[in-house]
Amino acid sequence: MSLSPLDSPLWSGLYGDPELGAMLGDAALLAAMVRVEVALAEACAAEGVVPESAATEIADKLTGYQPDPAALAAGAARDGVPVPALLGDLRAKLSEEAGQALHWGATSQDIIDSATALVMMQALAVIAARLRRVIRTTGALAGREAETVMAGRTRSQIGLPVTFGALVASWGQPLIDTTARMAVMQGAGRVSLHGAVGTDAALGDKAQAVRNRVAAALGLQAEDQPWHSRRDAMAATGAQAVLLTGSLGKIGTDVVTLAQSGINEVRIAGGGSSTMPHKSNPVAAEALVALARHAAHLQVSLFESALHGQFRDGAAWALEWMSLRPILVACGASLCLAGEMLQGLEADGPRMRANLDAAGFGPYAERAIFTLAKTLPRNAAKTAVQEAMATPDPVAALLAAHPELDGDTLTDPLLAAGQAPAQARAFAQRCNDLCGGNA
Amino acid sequence: MSLSPLDSPLWSGLYGDPELGAMLGDAALLAAMVRVEVALAEACAAEGVVPESAATEIADKLTGYQPDPAALAAGAARDGVPVPALLGDLRAKLSEEAGQALHWGATSQDIIDSATALVMMQALAVIAARLRRVIRTTGALAGREAETVMAGRTRSQIGLPVTFGALVASWGQPLIDTTARMAVMQGAGRVSLHGAVGTDAALGDKAQAVRNRVAAALGLQAEDQPWHSRRDAMAATGAQAVLLTGSLGKIGTDVVTLAQSGINEVRIAGGGSSTMPHKSNPVAAEALVALARHAAHLQVSLFESALHGQFRDGAAWALEWMSLRPILVACGASLCLAGEMLQGLEADGPRMRANLDAAGFGPYAERAIFTLAKTLPRNAAKTAVQEAMATPDPVAALLAAHPELDGDTLTDPLLAAGQAPAQARAFAQRCNDLCGGNA
Amino acid sequence: MSLSPLDSPLWSGLYGDPELGAMLGDAALLAAMVRVEVALAEACAAEGVVPESAATEIADKLTGYQPDPAALAAGAARDGVPVPALLGDLRAKLSEEAGQALHWGATSQDIIDSATALVMMQALAVIAARLRRVIRTTGALAGREAETVMAGRTRSQIGLPVTFGALVASWGQPLIDTTARMAVMQGAGRVSLHGAVGTDAALGDKAQAVRNRVAAALGLQAEDQPWHSRRDAMAATGAQAVLLTGSLGKIGTDVVTLAQSGINEVRIAGGGSSTMPHKSNPVAAEALVALARHAAHLQVSLFESALHGQFRDGAAWALEWMSLRPILVACGASLCLAGEMLQGLEADGPRMRANLDAAGFGPYAERAIFTLAKTLPRNAAKTAVQEAMATPDPVAALLAAHPELDGDTLTDPLLAAGQAPAQARAFAQRCNDLCGGNA
Amino acid sequence: MSLSPLDSPLWSGLYGDPELGAMLGDAALLAAMVRVEVALAEACAAEGVVPESAATEIADKLTGYQPDPAALAAGAARDGVPVPALLGDLRAKLSEEAGQALHWGATSQDIIDSATALVMMQALAVIAARLRRVIRTTGALAGREAETVMAGRTRSQIGLPVTFGALVASWGQPLIDTTARMAVMQGAGRVSLHGAVGTDAALGDKAQAVRNRVAAALGLQAEDQPWHSRRDAMAATGAQAVLLTGSLGKIGTDVVTLAQSGINEVRIAGGGSSTMPHKSNPVAAEALVALARHAAHLQVSLFESALHGQFRDGAAWALEWMSLRPILVACGASLCLAGEMLQGLEADGPRMRANLDAAGFGPYAERAIFTLAKTLPRNAAKTAVQEAMATPDPVAALLAAHPELDGDTLTDPLLAAGQAPAQARAFAQRCNDLCGGNA
Repeated sequence: MSLSPLDSPLWSGLYGDPELGAMLGDAALLAAMVRVEVALAEACAAEGVVPESAATEIADKLTGYQPDPAALAAGAARDGVPVPALLGDLRAKLSEEAGQALHWGATSQDIIDSATALVMMQALAVIAARLRRVIRTTGALAGREAETVMAGRTRSQIGLPVTFGALVASWGQPLIDTTARMAVMQGAGRVSLHGAVGTDAALGDKAQAVRNRVAAALGLQAEDQPWHSRRDAMAATGAQAVLLTGSLGKIGTDVVTLAQSGINEVRIAGGGSSTMPHKSNPVAAEALVALARHAAHLQVSLFESALHGQFRDGAAWALEWMSLRPILVACGASLCLAGEMLQGLEADGPRMRANLDAAGFGPYAERAIFTLAKTLPRNAAKTAVQEAMATPDPVAALLAAHPELDGDTLTDPLLAAGQAPAQARAFAQRCNDLCGGNA
Repeated sequence: MSLSPLDSPLWSGLYGDPELGAMLGDAALLAAMVRVEVALAEACAAEGVVPESAATEIADKLTGYQPDPAALAAGAARDGVPVPALLGDLRAKLSEEAGQALHWGATSQDIIDSATALVMMQALAVIAARLRRVIRTTGALAGREAETVMAGRTRSQIGLPVTFGALVASWGQPLIDTTARMAVMQGAGRVSLHGAVGTDAALGDKAQAVRNRVAAALGLQAEDQPWHSRRDAMAATGAQAVLLTGSLGKIGTDVVTLAQSGINEVRIAGGGSSTMPHKSNPVAAEALVALARHAAHLQVSLFESALHGQFRDGAAWALEWMSLRPILVACGASLCLAGEMLQGLEADGPRMRANLDAAGFGPYAERAIFTLAKTLPRNAAKTAVQEAMATPDPVAALLAAHPELDGDTLTDPLLAAGQAPAQARAFAQRCNDLCGGNA
Repeated sequence: MSLSPLDSPLWSGLYGDPELGAMLGDAALLAAMVRVEVALAEACAAEGVVPESAATEIADKLTGYQPDPAALAAGAARDGVPVPALLGDLRAKLSEEAGQALHWGATSQDIIDSATALVMMQALAVIAARLRRVIRTTGALAGREAETVMAGRTRSQIGLPVTFGALVASWGQPLIDTTARMAVMQGAGRVSLHGAVGTDAALGDKAQAVRNRVAAALGLQAEDQPWHSRRDAMAATGAQAVLLTGSLGKIGTDVVTLAQSGINEVRIAGGGSSTMPHKSNPVAAEALVALARHAAHLQVSLFESALHGQFRDGAAWALEWMSLRPILVACGASLCLAGEMLQGLEADGPRMRANLDAAGFGPYAERAIFTLAKTLPRNAAKTAVQEAMATPDPVAALLAAHPELDGDTLTDPLLAAGQAPAQARAFAQRCNDLCGGNA
Repeated sequence: MSLSPLDSPLWSGLYGDPELGAMLGDAALLAAMVRVEVALAEACAAEGVVPESAATEIADKLTGYQPDPAALAAGAARDGVPVPALLGDLRAKLSEEAGQALHWGATSQDIIDSATALVMMQALAVIAARLRRVIRTTGALAGREAETVMAGRTRSQIGLPVTFGALVASWGQPLIDTTARMAVMQGAGRVSLHGAVGTDAALGDKAQAVRNRVAAALGLQAEDQPWHSRRDAMAATGAQAVLLTGSLGKIGTDVVTLAQSGINEVRIAGGGSSTMPHKSNPVAAEALVALARHAAHLQVSLFESALHGQFRDGAAWALEWMSLRPILVACGASLCLAGEMLQGLEADGPRMRANLDAAGFGPYAERAIFTLAKTLPRNAAKTAVQEAMATPDPVAALLAAHPELDGDTLTDPLLAAGQAPAQARAFAQRCNDLCGGNA
């Protein structure tokens, strides 16, 4: 029905993420549940809990099976989870022996949570790869524009000169820091297999061995304690994705500002207007902002899912279903948008310089004060500069009053930009060290 | 791809709302945009702005046309709105003359906002009708259980006796109050038709007349001022839906509590467990809680969409797209769930009484104090009751010390329930007056 | 300790609201609780429930008493509500008879909720008065600048000409619409007085009469049904305040954009910088944005407080305490900031015109197309304009190709601004009709 | 004025945290700003940037100085930051030479951000220490109750037997996992010292050396890149605190449920009622729930503060001020409440057993099926058990039909609790290994 632009054929090229969407959607999640059931049957057989022949049949008949979500809707509504209906569907394909061996010792939550962890880890791998690409792109851009002078705006007002490369470095550094935090996300890649109330009651002393086998088969980790009602790892994963989406949203914010009419310091590929042929809208940049804010709002559901009552809580669990996968898609879509936008971003150096120049002497005042303060008391230096700024030509006035000043460098924007070029280059190097090659 | 249970074939019977989903989904929204374009062409023709023949052709060829969302994805991603691509699709069906008359004087936002208002008002009508049914159901239930005594729990502890009917009245009254607030939602049913920056520049002095005709054709209102960047009515509508969803969530909360093992005061149709055949899970009640919380989180996006920059803001507008329709579906699904749950809810009067009795004399202490306080100082009354409560048989002790007390009524729960039955009956009457008939 | 800028001596002039803060803070709330207790005692005496002498003593000794919040901290922590400790404090000032008459038939929640309603209604009256003043200010500004031409920016790009007055009208109209929604807020001004579990158990058949008297004494309404666990009216009030704060935040957003370096279309009184003497930061405008977003986030707590379990829910209730009063202060502070900012706002008409002119012919293209389309097919008109725009001097090219065009008006910005002046004037008139006088 | 219970003398014993509040409040933050200025002056002197004598005077006169927040309010409102007014206050205490050396090369944001990092790291140290204590307490409790049988409730319905120790382990394990995530929080403990737009323009080639000295003096880290507009570390810290608060909120949720009237499986110290002397309200448990939800809502502001425009954004920055410190206090208060509550928590083993027994044979059915399934096909085993459950005495029926079953263990709850005791003991051991000693 496509209610949300995150999950809509119409918006798949902007707010959506067809790759992650396909990986995380209901169909994929149900297919992953089947994978978990197959792995469980094989693990049980290896531990002598169910017959080898049953496990073989289960693997033969169910491997790769993709259940139809709509066909399970009535069961999901009745049971609050799709697993009983799914088991009915699967058993209809199996001999009675194999059907009985299926789902041995597991509870619905084991299957759903393991499958969720499985698709989530796949999504995180995609996110990590895209993140590396975006880091490379920002590194290349920062290096290329390390000395491109622009006005550094604070609180929307021109402060001092900076370089565009330094701004790009401030965009990219949080992305690098995110990779270091990715380990937190890895922690959520666990198999769940502890039975009805998490006590291993059905599998008894075989539980840990079966769990280890299932985990190995699925590429997940195993824990001895159930996590049916411990949801912090899921919520922490979502929070990291929200932080990353927020860092990309900051890039979007800045691009909207810099690309706006009258500033025009950067150009990105933009959207047309149905009535205004001269316009070029910063579509991708705005989408980054919207996705970042919306992801933060969805995360409230994920945080609250941690208030998970007793040994299973249908309300808290559903909050997780409503938020985790959309957040990952918002993050994934943002990476695509940001990557593409940054690849195509053109910085207009002359315009940046012109905008800085239009601000007059102000952006150079601080540097003049600190230069004079090497020989004058700071207050006297400040007064000298302020007096000069009250004249029509502050540079001439300053040089007249203080011939010791170097007229050639007084308003050299690159000098006034301090460490900005160095910051940009250091960042570019860091990207190269971390992610190698060019974007 | 079905990332969110609100919009998923798998969950359509629980967290979703197939009726509202179909009404609010992208396909319906695009079809509504076509309706707006047709109404616009006819209005322009009626005002002499475009040829009658063009409008006739547009109406003939486009009425009922349902665009394919996926086919517009590339255009939506490029332009940030689907309208330019949609116009291309529509013009391909029209003669050149009609194609040129299409979309006369409108901007993309006019079409999207008018179409959104259109489907939203349809959804609100469904919500209003469902709400009336749920109110009738609560009225009937409150009337039926007006004298069914139960323990009134405050802060999860048994306080004094109440009746189940009074509890149901507290569930239903906010639903009645919601109907009174529905007028706020009506305010958002406006056509948008003010052109590129909201100045009626293209339609000039015909603008108001065209707008009025379009509004009349679509059953919407018309305003002389553009609302491109004034989003408070949309956000207010969402807020009302969230409030309603929250009121239904309170019912869910209470039902989970009352149906839990060990309390067992109500029974609802519940979900089975894949491993625990004896269980009956309060699936619908939990879903009400989850939907209520999630809708509140989505509303943050809608509130923030009101910070809509200048004359159109692509980021703020997208936040609205991400939240408004999912909130309406959460509200609609909650009404279905609550209605069905309340229809099938069985109150176990004897169990309610038994749970109250298990609390002993405590729930009657306040009434005893106030009875004694008619003749004793209140502190003396309190002391008398507390001393009695320290004995194994507080009733006997009290009667012994205060033979003037009426032993027959001292622990009569219905007497101790005060106005609870009257509240329930008054509420039932109010429902009947407002919504008529039985559920 | 001042953790939040909303409630901090340091920030009282920016994010705080000393007037509303004093009205809504704990000290005022406790003083209002005393008022409620006094009104209750007098009402009980008038109905013969407690002795007249007791009520007289209570009124004499407690009227105007302001409890010390810190002195009640231990009791509040122990009991989860401050009322038992407050009653101890009050009874220490009273004779035994009066002490026993105090709090007759009430439960802690009655006192807290009634006091909250009382201070909230006072705050809403202040908000309403400030709102009228801000509406007047926007009306005056819109009228004054009705014909001040500026570039209408959509999605951050210059679209067509508008006037600043029309932008101001789009700021102010939601404020007018808010006043119409204020009625929703009034609904929450109710006394609570239903006893322990809401059944009027203690006051019996005198309950309604006592309640009516207390309501009349406090200027609140009375309902026959308890609202201990029906919190929708409180949440709805908060939502209206959030909507209003959001509408003010939109003004802040626009002012930041228009005042930024390089655009410079408006000037507001701004903040200095510790190192950049030439800067003027849009402090108030940024604060409006932050307050609007933060209020929306706080509202989640208020929405969720509606999931209020059974007859009283300590967790849900506390969420209300954590959010309602801060939201009202955010709204009140925003009104002060916006009012002052708009009073001092200077629109720079020449700069607005220059920024529009810098966009060249683009903003006039749509009007030229529609003018030509009166005699040409629309596509031909569009092509003619686009061809002219590809030349260095589009106006000359257009006039050469289409001498029937009026060169004097082709790029007249006020003509191109369509109904913008009329919208501004209509809005100014509406403000005058509604709120009278000048700001 | 005390608008929020997090920051209120009235609520200091419940929702507040006097220790953290004092550490994080405005007064402490301003005092920390003074510490930063002193450290900066000393570092500048050590690097030869300002005279030694000036730095010595600054240290002598300003060390330990605690500015009065209210005295800076006018300046904070005017400038949007308190630093210019603070500098005026400080310079009034200094000679002209020292006054000029003060704040050398820094911008307001450097001072505020460094001071915030400083007080935040102090708060995190307190949080870490409290967390260790709570972990110890849960470990001791889990060990003590490892074999205390109770009903394991899933979706509010009794599933299978568990032990209370296993439930406590599920409470405590996320706390252990939090300690591992504390490293993420450490990353935010950085000094900021990069000047007006982050380019080290004023300090030039001395910048890194000065920064390193200041960092060392304050116990913070130094980075070569400015973090003026990179706010992810702050937001990540808040998110970790919210996750921890959420994990504590889950404990609160469970305690409310288990302590409720009619379940009565645990007892905590509770609140009295003004009208119902027999009640004991789970005040602390409810507070944990409210704090957890509210902290999640506040975190939205912190997430959104990451959308920080250009080189400084007054609106985004203010969102951080509005959320970070309240979140830390909510977390700290929750740790105190949870620690105290768990210290005093009494598990009622006999009542737990009685509640389990009241559920009859159901909780043993799964184990019976799996026992029979060792020799029968699983479906046959399931049928056998279901048939027995349809009789008045399922145990007798099962033993009659399957004499091979061991009647002594068929309904042994500890056997049916599987690995629950082992999980509890393993957790207790883990706590001991990690945090040592007993609580």
